[in-house]
Amino acid sequence: MSLARQVDALRSGEQDLLAVGETMHAAMDRLYPICRSITGDGVRATLDVLAESLDVERHGVPSGTQAFDWTVPDEWNVRDAYIADRRGRRVVDFRRHNLHLVSYSVPVHATMTLSELLPHLHTLPDQPDWIPYRTTYYSRDWGFCLPESRLRSMDEGPYDVVVDTTIEPGELTYGELVVPGDNPDEVMISAHLCHPSLANDNLAGIAVAVEVARTLAALPSRRYTYRFLFAPGTIGSITWLSRNPRVLPRIRHGLVVTGLGGPGPLVYKRTRRGTRDVDGAAAHVVARRGGEVRDYSPYGYDERQFNAVGFDLPVGRLSRTPHGEYPEYHTSADDLSFVKPAELAEAYLAVLEILDVLENDERYRNLSPHGEPQLGKRGLYPTTGGRQATDAVMAMLWVLGYSDGSTSLLDTAAVAGVDFADLRRAAARLEAAGLLTAARQTGTG
Amino acid sequence: MSLARQVDALRSGEQDLLAVGETMHAAMDRLYPICRSITGDGVRATLDVLAESLDVERHGVPSGTQAFDWTVPDEWNVRDAYIADRRGRRVVDFRRHNLHLVSYSVPVHATMTLSELLPHLHTLPDQPDWIPYRTTYYSRDWGFCLPESRLRSMDEGPYDVVVDTTIEPGELTYGELVVPGDNPDEVMISAHLCHPSLANDNLAGIAVAVEVARTLAALPSRRYTYRFLFAPGTIGSITWLSRNPRVLPRIRHGLVVTGLGGPGPLVYKRTRRGTRDVDGAAAHVVARRGGEVRDYSPYGYDERQFNAVGFDLPVGRLSRTPHGEYPEYHTSADDLSFVKPAELAEAYLAVLEILDVLENDERYRNLSPHGEPQLGKRGLYPTTGGRQATDAVMAMLWVLGYSDGSTSLLDTAAVAGVDFADLRRAAARLEAAGLLTAARQTGTG
Amino acid sequence: MSLARQVDALRSGEQDLLAVGETMHAAMDRLYPICRSITGDGVRATLDVLAESLDVERHGVPSGTQAFDWTVPDEWNVRDAYIADRRGRRVVDFRRHNLHLVSYSVPVHATMTLSELLPHLHTLPDQPDWIPYRTTYYSRDWGFCLPESRLRSMDEGPYDVVVDTTIEPGELTYGELVVPGDNPDEVMISAHLCHPSLANDNLAGIAVAVEVARTLAALPSRRYTYRFLFAPGTIGSITWLSRNPRVLPRIRHGLVVTGLGGPGPLVYKRTRRGTRDVDGAAAHVVARRGGEVRDYSPYGYDERQFNAVGFDLPVGRLSRTPHGEYPEYHTSADDLSFVKPAELAEAYLAVLEILDVLENDERYRNLSPHGEPQLGKRGLYPTTGGRQATDAVMAMLWVLGYSDGSTSLLDTAAVAGVDFADLRRAAARLEAAGLLTAARQTGTG
Repeated sequence: MSLARQVDALRSGEQDLLAVGETMHAAMDRLYPICRSITGDGVRATLDVLAESLDVERHGVPSGTQAFDWTVPDEWNVRDAYIADRRGRRVVDFRRHNLHLVSYSVPVHATMTLSELLPHLHTLPDQPDWIPYRTTYYSRDWGFCLPESRLRSMDEGPYDVVVDTTIEPGELTYGELVVPGDNPDEVMISAHLCHPSLANDNLAGIAVAVEVARTLAALPSRRYTYRFLFAPGTIGSITWLSRNPRVLPRIRHGLVVTGLGGPGPLVYKRTRRGTRDVDGAAAHVVARRGGEVRDYSPYGYDERQFNAVGFDLPVGRLSRTPHGEYPEYHTSADDLSFVKPAELAEAYLAVLEILDVLENDERYRNLSPHGEPQLGKRGLYPTTGGRQATDAVMAMLWVLGYSDGSTSLLDTAAVAGVDFADLRRAAARLEAAGLLTAARQTGTG
Repeated sequence: MSLARQVDALRSGEQDLLAVGETMHAAMDRLYPICRSITGDGVRATLDVLAESLDVERHGVPSGTQAFDWTVPDEWNVRDAYIADRRGRRVVDFRRHNLHLVSYSVPVHATMTLSELLPHLHTLPDQPDWIPYRTTYYSRDWGFCLPESRLRSMDEGPYDVVVDTTIEPGELTYGELVVPGDNPDEVMISAHLCHPSLANDNLAGIAVAVEVARTLAALPSRRYTYRFLFAPGTIGSITWLSRNPRVLPRIRHGLVVTGLGGPGPLVYKRTRRGTRDVDGAAAHVVARRGGEVRDYSPYGYDERQFNAVGFDLPVGRLSRTPHGEYPEYHTSADDLSFVKPAELAEAYLAVLEILDVLENDERYRNLSPHGEPQLGKRGLYPTTGGRQATDAVMAMLWVLGYSDGSTSLLDTAAVAGVDFADLRRAAARLEAAGLLTAARQTGTG
Repeated sequence: MSLARQVDALRSGEQDLLAVGETMHAAMDRLYPICRSITGDGVRATLDVLAESLDVERHGVPSGTQAFDWTVPDEWNVRDAYIADRRGRRVVDFRRHNLHLVSYSVPVHATMTLSELLPHLHTLPDQPDWIPYRTTYYSRDWGFCLPESRLRSMDEGPYDVVVDTTIEPGELTYGELVVPGDNPDEVMISAHLCHPSLANDNLAGIAVAVEVARTLAALPSRRYTYRFLFAPGTIGSITWLSRNPRVLPRIRHGLVVTGLGGPGPLVYKRTRRGTRDVDGAAAHVVARRGGEVRDYSPYGYDERQFNAVGFDLPVGRLSRTPHGEYPEYHTSADDLSFVKPAELAEAYLAVLEILDVLENDERYRNLSPHGEPQLGKRGLYPTTGGRQATDAVMAMLWVLGYSDGSTSLLDTAAVAGVDFADLRRAAARLEAAGLLTAARQTGTG
């Protein structure tokens, strides 16, 4: 089964799309409790889970390694962290929720009053029952995050404050998977895996990327080679970029996948240039699904690294409601209940549809270009005239009408306002009838 | 009188435009009862009527002739056709309305019950009093069209069913008229003439084309050569295209005219490329008349043949509400009362205005380009200052301000948001005052 | 203090912008009573006032001098003009309002009835208490302007009619000021000074131009050379153009300033081509101030001369509600109360902001282009992660993300939807941190 056939089967209901959504949600379930950060055991534990269903290769880059303007930091691990009251009761306990500890907190063993503690406590006064997510990767500090309601119930103390962490030379870990295709040119799909117990940001992206990788790997062949990257945000992608100068020229298309759950519509963020092939493909798919297409901005996830002026890679980003635009963002409310299987399922299909365009968009040449060919004598046209044309006939007429060897199916879909997949099927019928041939140049693909 | 002068006279009311509309409606009156199809006596009878006021040349192409992917079919003619009940009463009678018979029905002489007849009967359940229009040109079949209300009143029968038709080798007939101009480059105006008693589709297009041809032929000279084609849809235009390979390179501009009556606004459908001269001219005229301009689609009338990738001719289409968008389309309700003289008159003038742009658009050079020339000393400017400029002065200022030798009057009209004809008249005044000269290249026109 | 620093100080409130508005309004106060026309003592008196605070050079061009298609007219001066009734009472008196006399009226000494007078009287029936403004520069005539209410109260007379004017060979006078810059390329700022007691048209433009000139002259240096022109409309600018053929190639940017008071928003009128640098700069500034940007039209003020096809200079126009779009236009209601200091102040700052863009827009090159540079280690990024970026950080990310050597700060501001001045400050911080360098070509500036 080709990717095109797979997409058609999922769209027609021949394959159960929601079941795929449930599989992805179950994968998120397993990964949710793990305490991830930009380095450490949590990253490796996450990659171990991915390795159960996918041949993800694990890479470790030693602390202190230079990566362009950045340096791989020491590795951070947590044994325990809590604030306990005089009776020894843990008022704030990392073991109950790993968001309670500011990521990369240095070790602390101290007795402190609430007043002394306050500069190290983070809450969300507007959302008094939620725990915020905070980090201090590149500044030696420590802190706890807790619900505002909890803070309000705390007396002056004193409290036992324990942060039992290590920050020591170790490694930065990332996972990589290459699914080879007929063409050495690559499509990169990247999902950041540095966030602790946050479901949408970015277990949702990881789960969709894993399922897309499994789907592509199961196909008998692919036009492009696919590279999946599971790396910590910013430092992870910059480190990967610094170690793969020979891969970069082969990257023809790319997608950062993140935040693919939640109630909002699909949102595609364009590449910096905004006119790459992936921009056309993703804009088509997302717009037809009622989603939004936005211009590039230099803030967000790892698309900002791939699109930096020194790399200028054609990498867009697919998400639902973007970071910072939903209240649950970077809080404990971004939990497993915030992300629904149906949302993941739609996102998964949207990624496949984008790849379908990238794999199957063609410039065709009409082999019967002098007027409309007589479709009726080939059984492609209804025999009783006088009524309006059907959608299937219209799709063929659009393809024939624009197949001048230089207009692509996607260009035609845009002019026609119809689905790429409908034109792809019409082109297949016309090609089978000897009325059409692909004008693809041999060689570069 | 030049075309420009003619347009100005019609726009100013100096000539009676509505009278022209009434002449066209009277012409439709004569043509309405004739049973036309893609071949046969009805086509020739129609061309005979046109020949009364216009030197239309009649061409016959034998059945069996190959035209690209198509073959000229056998000729179809009808002597009689009816469904009669047991008492001999004609329940459905071709002689009362030629839409009753499916076009290209094969001969039948049979006695059938209503149940047996039903697969051959076409009605419009949503419009129970209208007769639909159906054809079976390329599939040997037969059928009757009737109002749903008539069908409901029919009992089980049996009925005498008579289709007294012939389908035999003959010819495909079309009419052609060439009105020569100073320049051998051509403007093609094409109207399909294959439909039986349907007023808007396309007696309206035929009547307007005839009147435009008469107007052009009566002028002392024309910039372009004009070719009028009256041919059956699809097979007619494809046949014409196959027989005129040497004409095609000369076609500089073209319009398919169809459905020019009915209450809707004027609608211009762009050429496939969408940026031809005729697109600019027609968009200007139609938009200023409150009409709509639409992009090309590969469905419709003969514009789909002219614009096929193998020909790529610059032929747009002018209509009012397009086919399939008004309920009367392809039914007996598209009768003479559906088309009003004033609608035809506006369409006729719009066609002349489009041709006026094509004939008279120029790139001018300002001969006093250093600042604004002093219009006052030439009597072109009001002498008392302090008030706002008049429209006539503004038109001169627009022409002077943009006449750099590379901006056309139509470009200027678009920037200025004023009528092409107003700028054309302003340019004439300025040229007469020695302030402007046409920058037209000699030779190719 | 540089222009950039000046703009920032005015925007931040560090300098009192409204005080500048009051200074400009006070300057208008002095100029308002003077009777200006396209020639004469009023023009010279106006230039004398300007010379008190600015080194404006006065030029006189003799009557009869040819300027392209125009001739410098005889000079017009007024001693007195009135219509007096039988008892010697001045019913209409030039000494009470200089709008009462049609500009360039020829001498008259006559006794006339109201009926005889009527063809020479101008009123505004819709605004019965206002005096209209009328001229008869190029046609030997005379007339009085008066309120419709005054006219209604006049009986049949007879009246003594006195127009004690001279129209004799003299000169056309204009003022010019050049403020030199590092670069001989020029920015021209032009304000017409031919109107009598009309505040907005154009004492407002003159006052703003004067204040901008004073501000620029007080700076230690400027990138460009600035040329200020105070000349009568049409004949004045055409005369200037005819006498300065060697200056024209140096004009890189220009603005006509006029009508900068009144309650409406700022309005920028593009150059004829519409894509000059000044168009981008002014559109950015005006749009961010809630103003309007309009396309060029060949009617208006002296922008129509600068943009004529024979000069094609990049000169736009800044105003508030344009001429003819407010009822007070060209009437006695365009008085000092119609123009508020705050309106002048905003216009003055908008002009400086436009010049700030023209002076300081740059194409930068990111010196750490491989991914995002680590701003944190340079103290440019907050140390606690997990929250959204601040505006100042975003401005740096925009500059870094688009500094590819070919995208300008203004281009980036357009993409980012942020203020040019914010990006200019971010670029300065990044340049100081060694992360950015200007890619400006040496030589041509």
